[in-house]
Amino acid sequence: MDDSFKGMPWRERLYIIIFFTNTPAGKRFDTLLLLVIMASLLVVMLDSVAAVNLRYGELFTALEWGFTTLFALEYALRIYCHPEPRKYIFSFYGAVDLLSVLPAFAALLLPEAQFLLVIRVVRMLRIFRVLKLTPYLSQANFLLVALRGSKQKIVVFLFTVTTLVIIYGALMYVIEGPENGFTSIPMSIYWAVVTLTTVGFGDMVPHTVLGKALATMIMITGYSIIAVPTGIFTAELANAMRQETLEHPCPSCGKDHHESNAAFCSRCGSQLFRSEREPTAD
Amino acid sequence: MDDSFKGMPWRERLYIIIFFTNTPAGKRFDTLLLLVIMASLLVVMLDSVAAVNLRYGELFTALEWGFTTLFALEYALRIYCHPEPRKYIFSFYGAVDLLSVLPAFAALLLPEAQFLLVIRVVRMLRIFRVLKLTPYLSQANFLLVALRGSKQKIVVFLFTVTTLVIIYGALMYVIEGPENGFTSIPMSIYWAVVTLTTVGFGDMVPHTVLGKALATMIMITGYSIIAVPTGIFTAELANAMRQETLEHPCPSCGKDHHESNAAFCSRCGSQLFRSEREPTAD
Amino acid sequence: MDDSFKGMPWRERLYIIIFFTNTPAGKRFDTLLLLVIMASLLVVMLDSVAAVNLRYGELFTALEWGFTTLFALEYALRIYCHPEPRKYIFSFYGAVDLLSVLPAFAALLLPEAQFLLVIRVVRMLRIFRVLKLTPYLSQANFLLVALRGSKQKIVVFLFTVTTLVIIYGALMYVIEGPENGFTSIPMSIYWAVVTLTTVGFGDMVPHTVLGKALATMIMITGYSIIAVPTGIFTAELANAMRQETLEHPCPSCGKDHHESNAAFCSRCGSQLFRSEREPTAD
Amino acid sequence: MDDSFKGMPWRERLYIIIFFTNTPAGKRFDTLLLLVIMASLLVVMLDSVAAVNLRYGELFTALEWGFTTLFALEYALRIYCHPEPRKYIFSFYGAVDLLSVLPAFAALLLPEAQFLLVIRVVRMLRIFRVLKLTPYLSQANFLLVALRGSKQKIVVFLFTVTTLVIIYGALMYVIEGPENGFTSIPMSIYWAVVTLTTVGFGDMVPHTVLGKALATMIMITGYSIIAVPTGIFTAELANAMRQETLEHPCPSCGKDHHESNAAFCSRCGSQLFRSEREPTAD
Repeated sequence: MDDSFKGMPWRERLYIIIFFTNTPAGKRFDTLLLLVIMASLLVVMLDSVAAVNLRYGELFTALEWGFTTLFALEYALRIYCHPEPRKYIFSFYGAVDLLSVLPAFAALLLPEAQFLLVIRVVRMLRIFRVLKLTPYLSQANFLLVALRGSKQKIVVFLFTVTTLVIIYGALMYVIEGPENGFTSIPMSIYWAVVTLTTVGFGDMVPHTVLGKALATMIMITGYSIIAVPTGIFTAELANAMRQETLEHPCPSCGKDHHESNAAFCSRCGSQLFRSEREPTAD
Repeated sequence: MDDSFKGMPWRERLYIIIFFTNTPAGKRFDTLLLLVIMASLLVVMLDSVAAVNLRYGELFTALEWGFTTLFALEYALRIYCHPEPRKYIFSFYGAVDLLSVLPAFAALLLPEAQFLLVIRVVRMLRIFRVLKLTPYLSQANFLLVALRGSKQKIVVFLFTVTTLVIIYGALMYVIEGPENGFTSIPMSIYWAVVTLTTVGFGDMVPHTVLGKALATMIMITGYSIIAVPTGIFTAELANAMRQETLEHPCPSCGKDHHESNAAFCSRCGSQLFRSEREPTAD
Repeated sequence: MDDSFKGMPWRERLYIIIFFTNTPAGKRFDTLLLLVIMASLLVVMLDSVAAVNLRYGELFTALEWGFTTLFALEYALRIYCHPEPRKYIFSFYGAVDLLSVLPAFAALLLPEAQFLLVIRVVRMLRIFRVLKLTPYLSQANFLLVALRGSKQKIVVFLFTVTTLVIIYGALMYVIEGPENGFTSIPMSIYWAVVTLTTVGFGDMVPHTVLGKALATMIMITGYSIIAVPTGIFTAELANAMRQETLEHPCPSCGKDHHESNAAFCSRCGSQLFRSEREPTAD
Repeated sequence: MDDSFKGMPWRERLYIIIFFTNTPAGKRFDTLLLLVIMASLLVVMLDSVAAVNLRYGELFTALEWGFTTLFALEYALRIYCHPEPRKYIFSFYGAVDLLSVLPAFAALLLPEAQFLLVIRVVRMLRIFRVLKLTPYLSQANFLLVALRGSKQKIVVFLFTVTTLVIIYGALMYVIEGPENGFTSIPMSIYWAVVTLTTVGFGDMVPHTVLGKALATMIMITGYSIIAVPTGIFTAELANAMRQETLEHPCPSCGKDHHESNAAFCSRCGSQLFRSEREPTAD
């Protein structure tokens, strides 16, 4: 409630408004910020379209100046009102905020650094901060838990895939050779990735019979082992969700997760109340 | 049974026949409707084939007139016999029914509005209404429950994907540039989507070494994170199906989950009531 | 054992050898059959390669005569020794056996029916009969149970996909039009399928901005809803496997599946012995 | 600890350092080996790039001599210090070690055997040995258990896919024919694989209406049955992970599955022994 601001120093008020959303003012600020970010991203994209750039180039440059000033101002404010400025500056979002301002300045000042302008798309990441403060967070959290749980398995998987594409690629290089467009092992590995991931651009394709036979193997492999990351993640996610749903705290020791049909707390052994729902009942 | 129609005003009879299928007449009506819709869709499609259109153009126009009249008639009837016409008109299917008639009239009257004709494919959606009244509904329901359950997670996923393609796309635009076909950031984002989703048309492909390296990353990313929506949906669906099978508490010991077709409690052995439906009966 | 053949009429012996594999002779017969089928398939394939055909055409024709005669002979034998020939002839495999002989004869006699030769690949299906008699059957059975369980859901899914591609296709036809290669609605639907299934041949690609925007939507859709059939099948398969593993028959009523931690039979209420392993334990 | 080497014959010390990683020296050795392997792989790849080869050809040849000598030396040492040299030589890694040396020698001595050089990529496999001695192993183990569990099902699946592509391919050959690029049945089967696995290079595409209709079927098939291997693997993996967590029976009531970190039986409340590892600890 805005009343909570009663007799609060400006700096703290700003801090609460800018860094939190649990106040109406904070909500308004975030919504506004979201819109400005979107708008600036739109400008960045349209500006890259030759035709549009020709007609509205100046307008876009003007707008870009506007957005950049705004973001610079915001960045300054954030540093000003944050209790521990240093901590903010070196935080992930602190870096993102800086990156969404610096390149624009650089490129606007020295034209030959135009390519820097693209760095402005990191502004996209700032949207996550706004999201961070929503119910979606808890959902994203599930996914993160599941991903963390499957991290090692995923690494093993990716390493196996890497080995596969390197060996497949090297073989294709020998079989097809430069005359069929497989100009080098790295190129052939790139092709192997394109094929294994079932993307299949078609810019390079095997021409020899042996090459096509091997390609068939690669495709079947890629088609089948997609099952592995999926299986890993699904199993982990199911776990994460199950953990979540079995919450019925123990009255004595407070252990808040138990088997779906537990009659006694599995930590302190005291009687439990039954849980209403049992997702993983047999 | 048709006997149920005994001494029932015409209007109500129509209502039951047109809006429900639990009567023989209703079933017949729906089957007929299904066939007409199919036929009209077939005409719409064939009519768009130049060669066929040349030979049967007039025939198709005639047929189209026929179908349109039929659907118009049906629409009128539905309004006439529905107890609360307004409610029907502004319902989803009311809109669909109207859309499957209007454009046809418009396009048939003023030829320059030919393109409107395509709107007739919304007739496809009307088939769902017929399906709505079948055992398939319960199955579709499972899927909907699972989708609803995973909605928020899916949103998080789609937002992450969006961020990925925007950033990947912007990078490719800088790396490859217009000279390699990446004419603008939006184009490059389009390419990033084509690649991340493993569609890989091949109309745009990276030519620089750095571009191919990044493309490799995008492809591996796309190949791996497909696991996320799959995992989400699978976990939710498994939940939905489990929930379905497991809700009849034991009267004596209160164990509240049992096999779908259990007659006795599996813990205390006392009699249970049977559950009506047994999705996973063994 | 071959002893089991002692004083058994020839016809029955043949029947057991040809239609079963639980005898050494039967095993030998099946292995032989498998090899012959493989060889004949190889000939069919190689024969279709122009270069090879030029050099070995006569040889292949000769071999084909041989295989056809063999299969014809086998077919005759099967009819001869089967207790109910009619039943066999009109069975699935009876038809397959006939189809693997007839076209060959037809094509070998009247050359203009060459295209019939391809029907010989149905011989491939005959391999399944041999497999039918192996441990793999039980595994295939799992998959079939799961598929049967998810049949309705799959139908709902396929119907939704059909609707999607029809509507997407029609829209693309209007947006891109013949000038961009989307010559008709059916063509556009074909393209929509190519895109939604993430195959992406690249023979047709959108050229307008709007078209590319819609294509992006189609690709994301296809990339996400692949989760649906996967989720359905996974959930069903997990069920099928769980059912399998919970077997501990009730001593009194013989009900052979129970909850993993059931103490009493859920059908007759009599005491149960505990099961050794509980895959779905909490 | 290196103290453990106190008064140990050189040969044994070497054995422990080279074949194990639980000593600091062993760790150092493995890290070094890993780096050398990486470097040699890099050289192999870069060497295949024409441009790079032109400039650094000699350097690479020199480096290659170096690496080969190193690996040869290592190979000799391994044989020397292994308690049962024969056992090592004929082990999988023994073969890999040899293969990572031999072809290099061969190709460096007789230039016409250049293509042998590619065999050096098998060095990639040697990295697995180093990994073999890490926590990742246990994770990889999960995957292997799941894969082994689903082996038979996968075979059934692959066989079905094979049958599908052969029959689809043969049909396409008849429908499209050589004039549309489907020059032979093997080629058409190759195309069927490209399409069924959703790779879709686009080098061959159907041109007839019938062909496109069939292609649509193939794509939908491929899009749907990807669910099968995924489902199989997911179910198996979920099993493997569950098994892991659930094996310590209650001494008093005998309930033989509990939460991974349960201290008391959740049914009778009596004390349990703790399990060592808790994969799914809440």
